Amino acid sequence: MRLKAFQDYYPDNYAHCYGCGHLNEHGLKIKSYWDGDESVCQFSPRSYHTGGFPDYLYGGLIASLIDCHAAGTAAAAKAREEGIDPEVQPLERFVTASIKVDYLTPTPVDTIELRAKVREINGRKVWVDVTVSSGDKVRAKGEALMIQVPDRTPS
Amino acid sequence: MRLKAFQDYYPDNYAHCYGCGHLNEHGLKIKSYWDGDESVCQFSPRSYHTGGFPDYLYGGLIASLIDCHAAGTAAAAKAREEGIDPEVQPLERFVTASIKVDYLTPTPVDTIELRAKVREINGRKVWVDVTVSSGDKVRAKGEALMIQVPDRTPS
Repeated sequence: MRLKAFQDYYPDNYAHCYGCGHLNEHGLKIKSYWDGDESVCQFSPRSYHTGGFPDYLYGGLIASLIDCHAAGTAAAAKAREEGIDPEVQPLERFVTASIKVDYLTPTPVDTIELRAKVREINGRKVWVDVTVSSGDKVRAKGEALMIQVPDRTPS
Repeated sequence: MRLKAFQDYYPDNYAHCYGCGHLNEHGLKIKSYWDGDESVCQFSPRSYHTGGFPDYLYGGLIASLIDCHAAGTAAAAKAREEGIDPEVQPLERFVTASIKVDYLTPTPVDTIELRAKVREINGRKVWVDVTVSSGDKVRAKGEALMIQVPDRTPS
């Protein structure tokens, strides 16, 4: 049995993201999981997710997937650091403050794998580094600064 | 009569981009135009282009639009610098080497305006700065390094 993904632990009122929200019926619904200290996400694009060249993957999609995978990783890492079991308490939600993507070489329109590592957690800020690979070759690298949304519980 | 957009001058074999290709029937088909020394693009998202919060625009879409608008601006700026009339010779095509986006404040799911300025042209490299506004408020800023695809004409 496969574990639930990070995104499955988002509270419903924060789960509308086009890239990763399980409640967005038109969205990409990416799924991210722990693999040791890294997080991993595999995604199979649609045939029309092309860049200017019909054989290459759309760079905007690559940036979008990095963004969502980093946000999920930040949320899961924060919970892990705090010893919170997402089965008991939904993940806190993170939003993107900044993202940078370097496109190293073209990416085929085929299944890609994103792997992320948390570089630093400092209070509500989490820095995440991401690689995007296809055929065991790293095609793009991303880094993101994610910010935890202030506590949603009324005080 | 509105002028043709930058993207309308892309050669057909480079016009398959999900974000801006006029030949991608599933794509976003953004359109960019000169406005003096700036380029401008207005885009109306679909209702499902939401971020985690249902009232806010998806950050991945914002990054995607910045990417495509910057690529179009780079191509148009290069042609302008070289005195090339795109009615006579299709625009050269640029691909993204690197993109950075800073999300300053949430963006409503409504029409946004992207404005770009070319910071520098150096050979096949063009650096472009972009703002994304909604309701006269800048919501995100982007910068991109675009690389001109090597000459497509066999020599």
